[in-house]
Amino acid sequence: MDPATTSTGLRDGAFGNARALSCRECGHEVELGPHYACPECFGPLEVAYDFPTVTREEIAAGPRNIWRYKALLPVPGDIEESPNTEPGFTRLLRADNLAAELGLTKLWVKDDSTNPTNSFKDRVVACALSAARELHAKVFACPSTGNLANAVAAAGARAGIKTVVFIPSNLEKPKQVNSAVYTPNLVAVDGNYDDVNKLASEIAGEEDGWAFVNVNVRPFYAEGSKTLGYEIAEQLGWRLPDQIVIPVASGSQLTKVDKAFQELIKLGLVEDRPYKVFGAQATGCSPVSVAYKTGTDAIRPVKPDTIAKSLAIGNPADGIYVLDICRRTGGAVEDITDDEVREGILLLARTEGVFTETAGGTTVGVLKKLIETGQLDPDLETVVINTGMGLKTLDAVADQVGPAATIAPSYDAFRATGLA
Amino acid sequence: MDPATTSTGLRDGAFGNARALSCRECGHEVELGPHYACPECFGPLEVAYDFPTVTREEIAAGPRNIWRYKALLPVPGDIEESPNTEPGFTRLLRADNLAAELGLTKLWVKDDSTNPTNSFKDRVVACALSAARELHAKVFACPSTGNLANAVAAAGARAGIKTVVFIPSNLEKPKQVNSAVYTPNLVAVDGNYDDVNKLASEIAGEEDGWAFVNVNVRPFYAEGSKTLGYEIAEQLGWRLPDQIVIPVASGSQLTKVDKAFQELIKLGLVEDRPYKVFGAQATGCSPVSVAYKTGTDAIRPVKPDTIAKSLAIGNPADGIYVLDICRRTGGAVEDITDDEVREGILLLARTEGVFTETAGGTTVGVLKKLIETGQLDPDLETVVINTGMGLKTLDAVADQVGPAATIAPSYDAFRATGLA
Repeated sequence: MDPATTSTGLRDGAFGNARALSCRECGHEVELGPHYACPECFGPLEVAYDFPTVTREEIAAGPRNIWRYKALLPVPGDIEESPNTEPGFTRLLRADNLAAELGLTKLWVKDDSTNPTNSFKDRVVACALSAARELHAKVFACPSTGNLANAVAAAGARAGIKTVVFIPSNLEKPKQVNSAVYTPNLVAVDGNYDDVNKLASEIAGEEDGWAFVNVNVRPFYAEGSKTLGYEIAEQLGWRLPDQIVIPVASGSQLTKVDKAFQELIKLGLVEDRPYKVFGAQATGCSPVSVAYKTGTDAIRPVKPDTIAKSLAIGNPADGIYVLDICRRTGGAVEDITDDEVREGILLLARTEGVFTETAGGTTVGVLKKLIETGQLDPDLETVVINTGMGLKTLDAVADQVGPAATIAPSYDAFRATGLA
Repeated sequence: MDPATTSTGLRDGAFGNARALSCRECGHEVELGPHYACPECFGPLEVAYDFPTVTREEIAAGPRNIWRYKALLPVPGDIEESPNTEPGFTRLLRADNLAAELGLTKLWVKDDSTNPTNSFKDRVVACALSAARELHAKVFACPSTGNLANAVAAAGARAGIKTVVFIPSNLEKPKQVNSAVYTPNLVAVDGNYDDVNKLASEIAGEEDGWAFVNVNVRPFYAEGSKTLGYEIAEQLGWRLPDQIVIPVASGSQLTKVDKAFQELIKLGLVEDRPYKVFGAQATGCSPVSVAYKTGTDAIRPVKPDTIAKSLAIGNPADGIYVLDICRRTGGAVEDITDDEVREGILLLARTEGVFTETAGGTTVGVLKKLIETGQLDPDLETVVINTGMGLKTLDAVADQVGPAATIAPSYDAFRATGLA
């Protein structure tokens, strides 16, 4: 989008209590708009706020979705009135069975698989949609292979904005269908995800009025992940957990959950006490975990090779901030093999009745490994985030499970199974 | 379950404010227990209550799931403390785009696809699980081909009760996986769904301590559907809609939503004003719609032949009550072809960003037909129920949608698509 056309015509309060976009590296501030890189140092921009007083009661009186935290997001005060998918306020499940299995005292699963399109992406996309709307974008778009494509296609349909989703042309048919149902404008690109991503950046630069959720409105988009942190704190009765385990793809979600906790402390909404943040990766794409273990700040990009496709970002933009947060809070970053990812999926399903995708299998499997290696204290209260739903990555476990018995339709045949 | 072992040892308040099981045909009452047929006339039993005063404030202070209505369900007062999937309180979406498309003034979609296992079955199964627990059942079980199997397997896993799910052995692999992830006790039966169902009834009769959710604890199970009605009323600001369109399989859901509305009126929680109930079927399994149209009370069983598998019950147990409610309230029962079911799925996805399964496609398609045929008043406020999620019946639309273009990864190739 051309800043000249978009920074004019903004209505008052278009971005709520957001004040500016601030560079994460040098602190330089630029006005709120479709910008994502610092004009001074090319560092990433993020949203800075002037928060008013916000009370627990005001939040509790809000809707049962992420807009209850609208005062803390870069969205207008009337955000609920614009059609959106109304994501968030998902279950925080007390997970006693899984805790017992792992030897933990107190464990919770934050289950984002029950969002409108079954992943946490509905949160970030809802914030990107608001920015696109306020910036008068003509087109809502993204490059993606999975969860993001679903979320953008669905949110765009509901908002009635032209929506274009770019995917690699070799994407499996079921994944194509899960976006194509929502939008006629699915564009298959002959190339890998990097090629699709590069094309998206080029279009964002050339075309006027295109809002690519994870490119030119990325600072607004990323803020949506804060709501995971807000909800966990509110659902725990307005307090922070001792430990939290979060999957790491770009690293954005982990940094935003930490940002949310810090904001809640500063606003006096929760007690200021220490918490530890842990990052989870699959070994086949573990650049942040490798850097953590080798004690360096330099993240060496990798070519992903793992079944955890939604975590397969070989050059994670926020990896360095993940390292910083995990080290500062006394947490860690860990990674597990694809077999352990599969085990994690089945472990969560069989103990808590939650069917997660490979990203959640990674997080649960890493939780297990963190306990086994003594990196996570089993006696401290712990939250693990499940970011998506198992039906989206069914193939990962399709060969691992099946009928215990196949029988004739008779009571005698049933008795013979030994299940009575 | 042997009544002799189960009706003893019940704790006080095991079934909350429920008083007895009452025969829907002759009114005969039997004590609360694992019974489903009237000993006098073999009519279906349903739960009868002695309700105390229940206020909106008490409900609003409850958890954000179906247990906020625990005073109106056959469950104990401490139900939240027993592990369950915490279903319900799903989105009620204002559907202005779909309304505009159909020529309606005001339309809402009650979206149960965001339940824990992505269908309304989580509601009924949660109530069945409570009954199984209170009756000291040793095994939690069901015969099913789809949504019910998923819901039972997940709820049983989380509750830590032995769970056995019976499926036809020719069920597609993905559907098997979606239950097998939760339980090692998946039993494939060589036969069709009727054979599986018959076997389940036989086991329920022979084995001690088995709770089959839709057989011997069915009266408790069925009550869970009432929560759809409670939520719609509460989410509308404690009032009833003018018209509601509900899919009809066994017919239980429709009758329970009506029961919920009647209870809310009697309890003074909503104003007593007329509402119309409409039933939706697929033409390939439309015994209730056929009876409605021919003006008879006699429902002639059919052999189902439709893509709407979750509605394919050829001899619906509650069909006669559906006819009664739709006629009494001034509603109707209608049916549509499989092609119209597919159109309904895509219509809802493209207008509101909600990807429904074939049952929801049926309901939306029937809504359209009801308007076109003048049976539903487009100027009255209408609610349509989406009972499940599109990923579960992906094949239904897989051939209908796809990329608009497949291009080389270049800006020029993109420009040539005309999408800019």
